Amino acid sequence: MQLAKGDVVAEKTVHLTRESLVRYAGASGDFNPIHYRDDVAERVGLPGVLAHGMLTMGIGSSVLGEWLGDTGRLRSYVVRFTKPVVVDGETGADVTYVATVGLVKDDGSVRIDLTVTAGSDKVFGKAQAVVVPQ
Amino acid sequence: MQLAKGDVVAEKTVHLTRESLVRYAGASGDFNPIHYRDDVAERVGLPGVLAHGMLTMGIGSSVLGEWLGDTGRLRSYVVRFTKPVVVDGETGADVTYVATVGLVKDDGSVRIDLTVTAGSDKVFGKAQAVVVPQ
Repeated sequence: MQLAKGDVVAEKTVHLTRESLVRYAGASGDFNPIHYRDDVAERVGLPGVLAHGMLTMGIGSSVLGEWLGDTGRLRSYVVRFTKPVVVDGETGADVTYVATVGLVKDDGSVRIDLTVTAGSDKVFGKAQAVVVPQ
Repeated sequence: MQLAKGDVVAEKTVHLTRESLVRYAGASGDFNPIHYRDDVAERVGLPGVLAHGMLTMGIGSSVLGEWLGDTGRLRSYVVRFTKPVVVDGETGADVTYVATVGLVKDDGSVRIDLTVTAGSDKVFGKAQAVVVPQ
């Protein structure tokens, strides 16, 4: 695969609902009620029920996996969490992932920079993966 | 919280089943059949059905979140994927997380090193989080 810095290799918008969060809670074991109860989220001063940070992070790796054809080609992944995603009970939330080539290395590995947005919010301060494309 | 390098701050063993993987697939949108079909896993030469790397990574952040009382105190998180976790259809898989203080920084943040094992396998080559304990 011939890649150059700046190439957009994957782009996807994912619709999250409250059901997504409950499923993720069950799978991950993270049953913090701020991820499914409006009253608790309000009581602790949050703007609403929040998606698990690791779910929004994990979807990023799925987007890369779909592009790579195999998540085994994902070598490392780092994010800095900045803005959590509020998932409205009626309308859910749309989260958009854009994966851009940041650096092509001599050893064939590639650094991918992910930009993840929900509305005008930047969800991660930094999100980078090192991948080995076919 | 008074912390010093080497302190073990959290330790947990999580039992994963095939149902965990199907739930994670539904939540994350990663429906790659190597995570729920023996026949496909075998066909592509894997040792068995594998847990999603991001699920094993995500559980690590839940373990840290339980310790911190709030995953909002998790500032960044990086892993290098090394050994995927095989989830047996009958017996599942036990994955053990040990979180140790790696570095206490002047700004009050703390680097946590996670050791994640499944049997004798080290699941991640590197797994580090930067957290801000209360």
